[in-house]
Amino acid sequence: MRKVSVYDTTLRDGEQTPGISFPLNYKIQIAKQLDKLGVDYIEAGFPAATKGEFEAVKEIVKLGLNSKISALARLVKEDIDVAMKTDVDMIHIFVPTSKIQVEHTIKKDREEIIQEAVRYVEYIKDHGFECMFSAMDATRTEVDYLKRIYKAVEEAGVDIINVPDTVGVATPFSMYELIKELKEHLKVPVDVHCHNDFGLATANTYAAVKAGADEVQVTVNGIGERAGNACLAEVVMALHALEGIKTNIRTEYLVETSRLVERLSGIKLPPNTPIVGENAFAHESGIHAHGVLKHAATFEPGVITPEMVGHKRRIVIGKHAGRHQIKKILEDAGYAVDEETLTKITEKIKEIGDKGKKVTDLDVITIAEVIMGELSKEERVINIDEATILTGNKITPTAVINAIIDGKKKVTSAIGVGPVDAALKAVAELVGEDVKITEFKMDAISGGSDAIAEVYVTVEDKEGRSFTAKGASTDIVMASIEAVISAVNYLLRMRRKNA
Amino acid sequence: MRKVSVYDTTLRDGEQTPGISFPLNYKIQIAKQLDKLGVDYIEAGFPAATKGEFEAVKEIVKLGLNSKISALARLVKEDIDVAMKTDVDMIHIFVPTSKIQVEHTIKKDREEIIQEAVRYVEYIKDHGFECMFSAMDATRTEVDYLKRIYKAVEEAGVDIINVPDTVGVATPFSMYELIKELKEHLKVPVDVHCHNDFGLATANTYAAVKAGADEVQVTVNGIGERAGNACLAEVVMALHALEGIKTNIRTEYLVETSRLVERLSGIKLPPNTPIVGENAFAHESGIHAHGVLKHAATFEPGVITPEMVGHKRRIVIGKHAGRHQIKKILEDAGYAVDEETLTKITEKIKEIGDKGKKVTDLDVITIAEVIMGELSKEERVINIDEATILTGNKITPTAVINAIIDGKKKVTSAIGVGPVDAALKAVAELVGEDVKITEFKMDAISGGSDAIAEVYVTVEDKEGRSFTAKGASTDIVMASIEAVISAVNYLLRMRRKNA
Repeated sequence: MRKVSVYDTTLRDGEQTPGISFPLNYKIQIAKQLDKLGVDYIEAGFPAATKGEFEAVKEIVKLGLNSKISALARLVKEDIDVAMKTDVDMIHIFVPTSKIQVEHTIKKDREEIIQEAVRYVEYIKDHGFECMFSAMDATRTEVDYLKRIYKAVEEAGVDIINVPDTVGVATPFSMYELIKELKEHLKVPVDVHCHNDFGLATANTYAAVKAGADEVQVTVNGIGERAGNACLAEVVMALHALEGIKTNIRTEYLVETSRLVERLSGIKLPPNTPIVGENAFAHESGIHAHGVLKHAATFEPGVITPEMVGHKRRIVIGKHAGRHQIKKILEDAGYAVDEETLTKITEKIKEIGDKGKKVTDLDVITIAEVIMGELSKEERVINIDEATILTGNKITPTAVINAIIDGKKKVTSAIGVGPVDAALKAVAELVGEDVKITEFKMDAISGGSDAIAEVYVTVEDKEGRSFTAKGASTDIVMASIEAVISAVNYLLRMRRKNA
Repeated sequence: MRKVSVYDTTLRDGEQTPGISFPLNYKIQIAKQLDKLGVDYIEAGFPAATKGEFEAVKEIVKLGLNSKISALARLVKEDIDVAMKTDVDMIHIFVPTSKIQVEHTIKKDREEIIQEAVRYVEYIKDHGFECMFSAMDATRTEVDYLKRIYKAVEEAGVDIINVPDTVGVATPFSMYELIKELKEHLKVPVDVHCHNDFGLATANTYAAVKAGADEVQVTVNGIGERAGNACLAEVVMALHALEGIKTNIRTEYLVETSRLVERLSGIKLPPNTPIVGENAFAHESGIHAHGVLKHAATFEPGVITPEMVGHKRRIVIGKHAGRHQIKKILEDAGYAVDEETLTKITEKIKEIGDKGKKVTDLDVITIAEVIMGELSKEERVINIDEATILTGNKITPTAVINAIIDGKKKVTSAIGVGPVDAALKAVAELVGEDVKITEFKMDAISGGSDAIAEVYVTVEDKEGRSFTAKGASTDIVMASIEAVISAVNYLLRMRRKNA
């Protein structure tokens, strides 16, 4: 079975994303994770760019990972010398080759560029390093010139040549033809580096491999300059699942790796991100979800499972919810419902959905309980009577909460690192020590300071049962209190009923 | 020049994204925007799904848009009858055709499915509607069966057939072959509907058009079930720019349309989204940005400009910043710097970048001013002395702020819809009426209630000069105050210096 190598450039091209700058400890965390994931090469940085980058590459080399480490350098002696001092395995040199880039950047004679490329490949090899050579902007360079420069570095002993689609203008068809032609002309392995300006980076990388490329350059989550690079998870899974081409990637760590880079880069993935996104294996519409409950491959690619990439399948209730889904959620929560009640619940959920509200699994259970007469608003275990929260620059954030618990008045106060923290600590104290707040999440706000803040709080009891509830208000503190009280009430009701 | 139609299904497949449910007024806003953008067809919904959806489709029809309106229906009489009652232009009927879907969902004989398809196409045409027929899961259906069912509906008078890659397993190469074969066999126009499970939806749609498809089904921002659908902006711009195939899309509204759907769906796009993302035409690294300043096409696809899609080019300062970029930012802000000072500023920015901080344009100017000895912390116009903020369920959110403005103590209080709103209003009052807060933005928080909140506040003066500054604290209220004070101080300094 055919196999290609994976050359990850998250720490170099990925870090060139405007706004991203990984501090050293983040770089080390990412490098270790890439090693765990099984990438063949880690391009750790561009040592000549800054002193910090030089140090970071050196530190990554010292980790002694299984992945080989590479460093980027322009085709100039100073860059290459600095890169060699980091003691990496490979030096990746690049030079513009398209007329437009040569003319507007380095302004050299194109024959002279070939001679310099040969000279520096020999220089790097003489110093005992592996060497990758990139003809920057290859997809806008005349194929004849490309063949000549690649052939020249091949003869100079380069280990691998890279074909970068620097501005993302290749298509799967043009990339296929280019790589096929280069493979016929060259003996040296071929690597490909695609940018995503037209959303074609994954397809172009896939096409290059189909045409014979031996290695793919990717970044985690596709981060990188402009629209970013080819995404590691998409490329690897498309090759595995659609073409039967393997890599050394341990795919079960794809989601974990994606989440780490999401967190450290601050670039959040939308839920509809392929392979690793929250919705990649989630189903909402009644028709689809019914099919999936019967047989997963009906409405999923089938050629991959959520487990294969470290994911979970989710059935999400929405306005398109069918009876089957709702029944399954209720059964999973331990409720048996008759057909008539199920119809009522289904109608209620559709009605709420039509109003534009997101219906969570918890909402379904709440609706079911209300309809089945088991929970009414009056029966809540805890009701907030009075809440007062104070903060400032010379005041320790403080919350004072009066609540009615089982009909009895109880008051408590707590301090925190901010007003939300103080409020949640006060509620936690009211509830007692056997229920704790395990997560707090707030959606981004944009617009004005009067926008609605949406807060999700997860609480957990000693038996490990956890519930998430949502609060929404123009007052972020009150939204937080609302969310936690709602989650706690549900948890307490459930426990008492089961007791 | 060849032209293809654009069939938008944001309001139908897009709305099936788990968690999305557009209320009626959102649907109407989106339909109007799609019409302004110039899509040929708007699939407005699935009227048989819920009563609200039926009403919404009817309301969209009543808008009298230039775009034609389509409604989805299963291959059952009740669905079709409900859809016809909405008075749309087109009924889009679908039925599973792959063995796996037929077996696990409708469980009908596959010959019987062909007869039903013919019967309902005739039924729809007899009622005077346009008709689209979809063989659901076409890319996992035997080509012979596909040809037979499509030929049968063609003979029954269908207006267009749709080839859905329902579970996203096509590749550009398999899609090209399939569409080519169908086009040779059929006379009726062919539409294609691609899902993005492997990140190939745009490429597959592009390949289908290359093979002869007449229409593309897309959604704004690629929203939709699981990993979503082919993205309108990517498909349209790839066809325009890379293949010279036109559509009726007024591309200058692509960014505006994307932003609207981003806001109404709540699904935020990462900055590295192709075409419409914040970074699509942004440049950070020194080498690239230098090239772009000289000639934009050096490090951009060149075949499209930001203006073409309603975008702007941004040069972002980062740790990879070169002297050229920094010099340009300072020159744009009206500062002339000598080479030695420029070196100092560049080094300082690289040092900050190495620590992992995001460097904004404002940071560059601030650093430059400090280095040029023009601004010191002591010279701030406003300094907060004491801030007290109060909120609760029975308290109107209130902020009291004591500040020192030009060495004089001043105190003010304000109320708001939440503690952040009250605090910002109090600062605005202190500053006076000629500076207003135009934007407030907060990054999402996850983890615990003690996480750091990052807040960005934009202020603007009467002359239209605006500045954005950032605040970060575990106390969201104090982070907001910090951000606004920093932005205001900068603005006031600038004005006084120029006065």
